[in-house]
Amino acid sequence: MRLLSYHGGHCAIANLEHYRQCIQTILTKHGSFKSKLGDVETELIFDTIHDHYQLMYVGWNGLSRVYYSVMHFDIKDGKIWIQQNMTDVDLAQELLEMGVAKEDIVLGLQPPSSVHGIWGGVGAS
Amino acid sequence: MRLLSYHGGHCAIANLEHYRQCIQTILTKHGSFKSKLGDVETELIFDTIHDHYQLMYVGWNGLSRVYYSVMHFDIKDGKIWIQQNMTDVDLAQELLEMGVAKEDIVLGLQPPSSVHGIWGGVGAS
Repeated sequence: MRLLSYHGGHCAIANLEHYRQCIQTILTKHGSFKSKLGDVETELIFDTIHDHYQLMYVGWNGLSRVYYSVMHFDIKDGKIWIQQNMTDVDLAQELLEMGVAKEDIVLGLQPPSSVHGIWGGVGAS
Repeated sequence: MRLLSYHGGHCAIANLEHYRQCIQTILTKHGSFKSKLGDVETELIFDTIHDHYQLMYVGWNGLSRVYYSVMHFDIKDGKIWIQQNMTDVDLAQELLEMGVAKEDIVLGLQPPSSVHGIWGGVGAS
């Protein structure tokens, strides 16, 4: 993983690339734990153009369909949105430990009214 | 969309690129119909490295979370897997009409025992 240095708000592009790398590193790490269910694949989905990133389980456990998103991040307007987390991993904490600014983390999986308050990611100055 | 000509099994790479374009064209077309629910975004997720492609609705309708995959394709071993379809659109038919070979379409959202029989996509010679 490439770590980039920060200089206040003067390196938005470097930040963005760093954020992309952080997300992919986190998903790759958690994607290395394979599902113990039947014929199920772990899918890492990285769209660096639209900035959508996912870890999914897809397949079959006998006659039961297994199809769900385990983790999902988006990057919008320079902020990382946590859109899905089906684990007990504290994804926001992992991002913070990798150098992501607190005000750039948005808990998209909480109702819009809470998003503004908890992390200050939306509309924060 | 770029259409490539076929010459039997001699243009696997061209086929693959054509299949990628077909999938992205289909998802983009269906993604143009916006959800009428509250604050919901249509996400087009194209990972041309891992060959995973999705159309998702993500957001909030009041205090209700909206988070689901509408359509999902994978490409594995030169075949297109339809992994999810929450609509009444016949995705296999759309692929056929775009020139995808019938034996290269796999209905991943049907149990493995059926997949082999219906389209012959898995293990078909």
